[in-house]
Amino acid sequence: MGSRGNGVVGSSNGAVDKGVDFANYFCTYAFLYHQKEMLCDRVRMDAYFNSIFQNKNHFQGKTVLDVGTGSGILAIWSAQAGARKVYAVEATKMSEHARSLVKANNLQDIVEVLEGSMEDVVLPEKVDVIISEWMGYFLLRESMFDSVICARDRWLKPTGVMYPSHARMWVAPIRSGLVDQKKNDYDGAMDDWYGFLDDTKNSYGVDMSILTTPFAEEQEKYYMQTSLWSNLHPNQLIGTAAIVKEIDCLTATVNDIREVKSTFSSTISMEQTRFCGLAGWFDVHFRGRIEDPAQQEIELTTAPNTNNGTHWGQQVFLLHPPVHVDQGSNLDISFSMIRSKENHRLMEVDFDVKISQTSGKILPSIKKKFYIE
Amino acid sequence: MGSRGNGVVGSSNGAVDKGVDFANYFCTYAFLYHQKEMLCDRVRMDAYFNSIFQNKNHFQGKTVLDVGTGSGILAIWSAQAGARKVYAVEATKMSEHARSLVKANNLQDIVEVLEGSMEDVVLPEKVDVIISEWMGYFLLRESMFDSVICARDRWLKPTGVMYPSHARMWVAPIRSGLVDQKKNDYDGAMDDWYGFLDDTKNSYGVDMSILTTPFAEEQEKYYMQTSLWSNLHPNQLIGTAAIVKEIDCLTATVNDIREVKSTFSSTISMEQTRFCGLAGWFDVHFRGRIEDPAQQEIELTTAPNTNNGTHWGQQVFLLHPPVHVDQGSNLDISFSMIRSKENHRLMEVDFDVKISQTSGKILPSIKKKFYIE
Repeated sequence: MGSRGNGVVGSSNGAVDKGVDFANYFCTYAFLYHQKEMLCDRVRMDAYFNSIFQNKNHFQGKTVLDVGTGSGILAIWSAQAGARKVYAVEATKMSEHARSLVKANNLQDIVEVLEGSMEDVVLPEKVDVIISEWMGYFLLRESMFDSVICARDRWLKPTGVMYPSHARMWVAPIRSGLVDQKKNDYDGAMDDWYGFLDDTKNSYGVDMSILTTPFAEEQEKYYMQTSLWSNLHPNQLIGTAAIVKEIDCLTATVNDIREVKSTFSSTISMEQTRFCGLAGWFDVHFRGRIEDPAQQEIELTTAPNTNNGTHWGQQVFLLHPPVHVDQGSNLDISFSMIRSKENHRLMEVDFDVKISQTSGKILPSIKKKFYIE
Repeated sequence: MGSRGNGVVGSSNGAVDKGVDFANYFCTYAFLYHQKEMLCDRVRMDAYFNSIFQNKNHFQGKTVLDVGTGSGILAIWSAQAGARKVYAVEATKMSEHARSLVKANNLQDIVEVLEGSMEDVVLPEKVDVIISEWMGYFLLRESMFDSVICARDRWLKPTGVMYPSHARMWVAPIRSGLVDQKKNDYDGAMDDWYGFLDDTKNSYGVDMSILTTPFAEEQEKYYMQTSLWSNLHPNQLIGTAAIVKEIDCLTATVNDIREVKSTFSSTISMEQTRFCGLAGWFDVHFRGRIEDPAQQEIELTTAPNTNNGTHWGQQVFLLHPPVHVDQGSNLDISFSMIRSKENHRLMEVDFDVKISQTSGKILPSIKKKFYIE
């Protein structure tokens, strides 16, 4: 949720600089205020709570690993559901609070909190269950699942279960006043710039017009090309949603998720509306595994919803100018998402949209690049 | 202005990790939007413009070093004022914009832009003038003056001049509604916390009350102990202001500025008012040097001012609860500021205030620690 992605995280050989990674990413998770925000997300809490307590068969007498335990909540529930032993790994000093929370709830004989990164920590044994709340905006922002994969490959027994077991990414076309708002903000910034150019020339004798193009590019990127967080209303979805990625948490590799590519179609379902951009969200499922399924399958979805919004919201990719479409218009969409070179926890997204109107008219391809910061 | 101070910048031997320093500090300066904010500060621009063009004796035919050139403005003015050669050093990719700005203003034969840190860069010669806009909030936040000292010790001729030549830090007692606002915010956060504790116990069976103390400390630090940016109105100053530090830019060492300590008194000048905290600001002067003085001494002040506010504002250190004082009440104040261990660009401030009321009553010492983040 909190990483701002300013510094270059990776070196030329690809290795991640841990100090920079901490400065950019991990640090916000060390704040109780941030943990509380996530603990107050009822949809998130209910899903994990139910996935554990309605599937005690997976926990009773078992060993569990909680990857990125934060305050320790999932580890504590796992212990309360009957686990024999729980290893709760946390990279930040939040681990100290997790440790005192475990003790205050009398679970110190079951839950062992370990401070360190999942890549470095050493457990005394392999585990029956790996549980983790690793999902970032649009699922993969923060690239925390890499750490879950690492944990799985090192510490999950061959018969072990992943919580959640599956994840999916969704994309749908939307309408939104944000596209006008951001365009106005951009225009305002450029008007202001031209006034600034005049002032600087007249008052200070320096011609800064050469910087207009890079300034406009910087503002364009900031206002128009950076994905936005929003909790959309379902009536903002104007066409069919499509799955752009499916992940089996038991078998996925880092390579499987490094690049997400998909081509899909979406039919506009709303009469006479404006196609203002695309929304991305995710869902995860707790199904256990084929050989050892969950007694009660649980789903956690972050799709637009009137009452059950989550702290993840959806990621909004605005397309300006919006295009007037009608019920039955067809969108052929190519979607591609890769990690930013400067910071593997942030993403670059490319959309290519071909609109076929109900009249038969086919509009030229709209291609746009976005940044998930 | 922009550094957020999240990651640990220094290692155990004191060396600064450059990647972390970039992620925490330098990165915001690479944005044109941020440069423009500073270029739009008329008070700042006028002071530097006047200091150069009203003191052409220091620039005509001379060599100049601009430390942290940003967009290149000071380097450009120095060249326009007649400098023979200007070296403009900039640590971020903003140097590329500075280079194109120099060229667009036909000064490429005079101004050479060098990308790199002042600590690493190598100049072909020593210089007559070092000019730099290095001041952070309350003067020393960002600790950029360290780089100016480094530049001076390596590259300034024995007869050379510093622009600015002198700097001072000021503190005064203030009144401000912010103290009530922040206290309300803190109380709101704690009320919310207690509701959260109940919900978590009732809905999810986990007792998080053990975290109340660390959560309260975290909120207290955030709302009540972190200095605020504000552009105060002069009528918010309720007593005499005092100089807590004076710096001669020609001779100051890093050790001189690592710790700022001062004891001073302030007499309340306003009738029946509330002492709500202290404000800190700075001024700098362009006086040249004794052997080679400025023809026109220029001052740049960030003191509270109705019309001439700057982007630096003042730093506000709130004291809750506020104390009722009257005209003639006396404050004996001990002030101490040191660098944060985790990040040398951020500060820790300690205040010790003894109030003597006009009635003769002397209140117990008010001691408080603050963080300049």
